[in-house]
Amino acid sequence: MDSNTLFNNIKKKKSFLCVGLDSDIEKIPAALYREKDSVFRFNKEIIDATNEYAVAYKPNIAYYESGGADGWISLENTVDYIKSKYPDIFLIADAKRGDIGNTSKMYAKTFFEYLDFDAITVAPYMGEDSVSPFLEYPDKWVILLALTSNSGANDFQFTVDRENNRLFEKVLHRSLEWGSENNMMYVVGATKAEMLRDIRKIIPDHFLLVPGIGAQGGSLEDVAEYGINNKCGLIVNSSRGIIFADSSDKFAQRAGEKAKIVKDKMAAILLQSHIL
Amino acid sequence: MDSNTLFNNIKKKKSFLCVGLDSDIEKIPAALYREKDSVFRFNKEIIDATNEYAVAYKPNIAYYESGGADGWISLENTVDYIKSKYPDIFLIADAKRGDIGNTSKMYAKTFFEYLDFDAITVAPYMGEDSVSPFLEYPDKWVILLALTSNSGANDFQFTVDRENNRLFEKVLHRSLEWGSENNMMYVVGATKAEMLRDIRKIIPDHFLLVPGIGAQGGSLEDVAEYGINNKCGLIVNSSRGIIFADSSDKFAQRAGEKAKIVKDKMAAILLQSHIL
Repeated sequence: MDSNTLFNNIKKKKSFLCVGLDSDIEKIPAALYREKDSVFRFNKEIIDATNEYAVAYKPNIAYYESGGADGWISLENTVDYIKSKYPDIFLIADAKRGDIGNTSKMYAKTFFEYLDFDAITVAPYMGEDSVSPFLEYPDKWVILLALTSNSGANDFQFTVDRENNRLFEKVLHRSLEWGSENNMMYVVGATKAEMLRDIRKIIPDHFLLVPGIGAQGGSLEDVAEYGINNKCGLIVNSSRGIIFADSSDKFAQRAGEKAKIVKDKMAAILLQSHIL
Repeated sequence: MDSNTLFNNIKKKKSFLCVGLDSDIEKIPAALYREKDSVFRFNKEIIDATNEYAVAYKPNIAYYESGGADGWISLENTVDYIKSKYPDIFLIADAKRGDIGNTSKMYAKTFFEYLDFDAITVAPYMGEDSVSPFLEYPDKWVILLALTSNSGANDFQFTVDRENNRLFEKVLHRSLEWGSENNMMYVVGATKAEMLRDIRKIIPDHFLLVPGIGAQGGSLEDVAEYGINNKCGLIVNSSRGIIFADSSDKFAQRAGEKAKIVKDKMAAILLQSHIL
C-alpha cells in the first residue's frame, strides 16, 4: 500500500486507529476455547466488529509464535482473512526483527512474500544492512523503532552523542539515508508524546506508528498535538484496551464500541487539524 | 544448562564450536527435497556428523519462519532431536528478539518453555524490561547483542557518549545490572576481534558468542588471542562454512570434516591457553 492510499483511507474512515492483535490465547474468552483455531476465531470476530473504525491492524508476532505451528496457522488465517475481506486495511507485522543482511532478507521474505503484510517493525541496533532488505519491496514498509513506549527506552535511546544528538535522533538522521517517507515509518511511543515536537523537526513528513495509549497510559490528544502533520502522519495503536475490553460473549461488540470511542476522538482531531 | 556444565563440555570435547543451523531450504541438497520435513532431515544428518566436534548449535529462526507452520515443525523437530539424543549440547535460538515486557515474556515462553532452548539472542535497543523476562528462567541464558559482525554495526554501535563510552560499551555496563555471568552472554562479531580487548576489560568473566568466522571473514586465532579467559569464555559460531560445505550426497560427511578442522584448531588454542 502506498502513502496516498493510506492517507485516503484515513480520510474516508475519519480514523487513524490501528488495532493491535496481541491475541494471547490465555486471555481470549473461554467460550472460544472449544473451537478449532480459537485465536483466529477471536481475531475474526474482533476484526468484523472494529474494521469500520480502524485503518490498520497489527498482530504482535510473539503471541502467535507462542503457539508454535498452530500459532502460525492462526496468524496466516488472520492475514488471509483481512487481506481478502478488508483489502483497504494497512497490515503491520509487529515483529521487531533485525539481523545481518542475509537473515533480514529471510525475514522480509517471510513477512512480505509468505505472509502478505504491508509493513514490519524493525529494531535499528544492527544498522543499515539489517534494515535495507525490507526496503526492496515496492509498496511495503519498514517501521523502525525510534523511541519506544516502555520504561527501558530510557536505558539507551536517550544517550547523547558528541554531536549532541540523542540515540533516537541519530537513528532518525541516519535512516533518512536508507529510505524515504514512502517506505519508512517510525515507532514513537505515546508515553513520550512531548518528544514528538523534536522528532517532527527531523522527519516532518513520515508516518509514525504510535503505541502506548490505553493500557500503557499515553494520551491521544498529546500525540495529536505534537505529532500530526498535513497528511495526518500518525497511526495510533491500541491493543489490550480494545480487544480485551470484555471477556463475556459480548467481547466483539464491546471491542467495537471501544474502537468507535477512539475513532470519534480521532475524527474530531482530524477536523480540528483541517485534514477532513 | 549452567556455566560449569558448559565449561566441562568444552574441556571434554576440546572444542568451543557452535554450528549455526541457518538451514535455508533453497540451499539444502536437492536429494532431500523429496523427503517429508526436508529441513529437519538435513539438520539431523548435519547434527549426527558434527556433534562430536561442537558444544553448541544455533538454529537461526528466520530460516524456519520463512517456511511458515511447516518451518516451525522443522524447528521443533530439530530442538527435540538435539535435546533427546545429545543432551550435553548448548542450544541457542538465534532470534534477536526484544519488545516491551509483556511481549518479551511471550517470546521467553516460546523459546524456553514451548521449545527447550538454553539461550536466546536478544537486541538491546528497548532496554531492561525488554530483556529481563528472559532472565527469570533458571539455567537459561540471554545472549545480548553488543558488537555485531555486519557492516551496519558501524551505524550506531560505535556512537560515543558524553562519558566517552561507545554504545556497545554502554550496553555492557548497563546490562551488568540486569544479570550475571551465569545467565547472560554477549554477541561480539569475529570481524571486530581487536575490540575484544576493550570488551574483556568490562566483562572479563562472561561467555561471548562470536559469529563471523568463515563466510564473514573473521579469524579464529584473533578471537582467541583477545577474547579467551580462564574458563574459555568463548563460543565461536560457524554456519555456512560448515553446513553448506558440500551440496552432493556427501554433504553431512563434508560438514563433519569441516567441523573437525575447526575443532582441531580450537583444541590447540585450548592447550596453548592452559585450559586443557
